[in-house]
Amino acid sequence: MIERLIDQIKKTGAPIVVGLDPQLSFLPEKLLAEMYSEYGETPEAMGHALVRFNHQIVDAVADLVPAVKPQIAMYEQFGLSGLMAYRETIRYCKEKGLIVIGDVKRGDIGSTSAAYATAHLGRIQVGKETYAPFDEDLATVNPYLGSDGVQPFIDVCKKEDKGIFVLVKTSNPSSGEFQDLLVDGKPLYEIVGEKVEEWGAPLRHGNYSDVGAVVGATYPEVGKRMRDVMKHTFILVPGYGAQGGTAEDLKVFFDGDGLGAIVNSSRGIIAAYKNDKYASYGPEGFADAARAAVLDMKADITKAIGWK
Amino acid sequence: MIERLIDQIKKTGAPIVVGLDPQLSFLPEKLLAEMYSEYGETPEAMGHALVRFNHQIVDAVADLVPAVKPQIAMYEQFGLSGLMAYRETIRYCKEKGLIVIGDVKRGDIGSTSAAYATAHLGRIQVGKETYAPFDEDLATVNPYLGSDGVQPFIDVCKKEDKGIFVLVKTSNPSSGEFQDLLVDGKPLYEIVGEKVEEWGAPLRHGNYSDVGAVVGATYPEVGKRMRDVMKHTFILVPGYGAQGGTAEDLKVFFDGDGLGAIVNSSRGIIAAYKNDKYASYGPEGFADAARAAVLDMKADITKAIGWK
Repeated sequence: MIERLIDQIKKTGAPIVVGLDPQLSFLPEKLLAEMYSEYGETPEAMGHALVRFNHQIVDAVADLVPAVKPQIAMYEQFGLSGLMAYRETIRYCKEKGLIVIGDVKRGDIGSTSAAYATAHLGRIQVGKETYAPFDEDLATVNPYLGSDGVQPFIDVCKKEDKGIFVLVKTSNPSSGEFQDLLVDGKPLYEIVGEKVEEWGAPLRHGNYSDVGAVVGATYPEVGKRMRDVMKHTFILVPGYGAQGGTAEDLKVFFDGDGLGAIVNSSRGIIAAYKNDKYASYGPEGFADAARAAVLDMKADITKAIGWK
Repeated sequence: MIERLIDQIKKTGAPIVVGLDPQLSFLPEKLLAEMYSEYGETPEAMGHALVRFNHQIVDAVADLVPAVKPQIAMYEQFGLSGLMAYRETIRYCKEKGLIVIGDVKRGDIGSTSAAYATAHLGRIQVGKETYAPFDEDLATVNPYLGSDGVQPFIDVCKKEDKGIFVLVKTSNPSSGEFQDLLVDGKPLYEIVGEKVEEWGAPLRHGNYSDVGAVVGATYPEVGKRMRDVMKHTFILVPGYGAQGGTAEDLKVFFDGDGLGAIVNSSRGIIAAYKNDKYASYGPEGFADAARAAVLDMKADITKAIGWK
C-alpha cells in the first residue's frame, strides 16, 4: 500500500491529505436547510448532508491530491446515519481514485484489535461470503496497549495490502503529558517510534513500510528527531494550518528526496470559505474555496521542501 | 452515574459485569442457520444473529448483575449491520434495567474527542431536536493523547450524568511494553492512574467518581498498588477467567467495604456452553449456561472478597 501512496504523491506532486472532518458548523446553511426539509431535523438528514458536502469537496480536489482522511468521530457522533455517510464517503473517494486513510485511532487487546482490523482494513467471512465492512486503505492505530494490540492490524495489512499509521506524537497541546515522559532519558514517543520501525520491518517495500507513524506538525523538533529514528517509516503529519503548524515546520518531516511524509489539513481546506482569504467564494462556493486552499497549501509546502 | 452503579452492585450482590462480546464462533449453529436462511449469508444476517443472541443472554442474566459491557469492535467488524446490533443491544439492556458500559476505547484530540463523547455518552443537536446516538451509560477511554483528549468525555459525563473508565493498565500480555516503563522510578500506568484520580476529583459522589479506571485482573500486584494510588476511582477489572485472572487475584482491587471494583467476564459467561463444565446445556441452552456461569462467578468472587 505504501508504494501506491508514494506513487500518487509523486503523480500529483502534492504530499497532502485532505481531512474530511465535516463539523456541523462547516456545512453551508442552504445545504442543511435542504436536507432538513427533505428528511426533517433528524440524524438521517445529517448523514445525507455529510455525504453531499463530501462529494462536492472530493469532486473539487480529487485531481490535486493523493489521499483523503475522513475522521470517523465526526460521523460517529450522528450514530448509524453518520456511519452510513462515513462508509459512502469512503466508497466515493475510492471510486475517484483517492487513497483513503481512516482516522479511527482504534486499538485494543488481541482478538478485539483483530475485529477492529477486520472492520476497517479487512474482510469478514459470513458463511461462504466475504465482505469489506468499512474498507479504508489505511487506518490510524493507538499503541497504548502494546505489540499484541497492534499486531492484528499488521497481519491484516500483510494479507490485504493495506497500511496503518501508529500514533507516536500527536499534535494536540497536552500530547506531551504522557508521550514526552522520559524513560531513561528517552521520551516515550521515541520508544513508541522505535517499536513502529520494528513492527514495520517485515512490511517494507523499497525504503518505506506499510506501517507508518503519526507525528504532529506542531512539534517540529520531534519531527526532526523521529525522521531520523524511524528511517523506514512514512509519517502522517496532522496539525498544519488551523492547529498552528507552518510549512517551514514541515521540512524536517521529509527525507532527502522530499518523500517520507504526508501532511494533513482538515478545516483549513474543507472550511476554507469561512477563512477571510477565501470568503469571496461564499458558503455556496465551499468546494471551489477548498480547491483554492489545496492549491495554496501545495505551493506553500512544495516550496518549503524544495520541490519544483 | 457511579452511585447508580454502586447501588445496583449492592442490590444484586454481584460486582460483576457481563461482557457482551459475541464472536462468530460463540453463536450456536442453529441460530446462525436460521438467520442465513432468512437474510442470506450477509452482514445483515449477522446483525440479527447478534441481537437475538444478546437478547437471550440478557434475559437470562438481567436479574443477577448490575451491568453489561458490549465490546463495540465485535459489532463494528460487521459494519453498519453490526453497529445496528450494538445500538439495539444497548437499548434492550437499558430497558431491562441494566447499566451499559460501552467498551469503545475511544480517544483523540479536543474537538474530535468531543465528537466521540457525544456519540457514546451525549446528545447531538440537529436543528431544534436532540438525539442520543449510541447512548451508553459509561464508556472506556484511551488516555494516550493526554488531558485535552479526555476532558471532553468528562464534560459530557458532568452534563449528562454519565461515566468513563480510563485505560490505566490493560489485561493483555504485552500491556507492559509501554504501560510499565519507568519514569523516575514510577511506572507509566501509575502516572496515568494519578491523572485519572485528578481528572475525577470534580465528579466525586460519595467516595467514588464518575471517572473510573481499567486495571486488568491479570496483574494483581498492579491492582493492589493502584487501589491505593486511586482512592476515589472505581476500577473496571477485565481478565477474570478466560484470560487467567482468579478470584484470589481480585481481592486487592476492592476496598475495605468490598466495593471499588467491578469484574468483567465475557466469553466465560456468554460462551459458557462451550466450556466442559457447562457443556450439558448444549448450544441451544447457551443462555441457561450463561446464567449458571454468572451464579458460579458470583459465588467465586463474593467468597474471595468476603461478602456474605
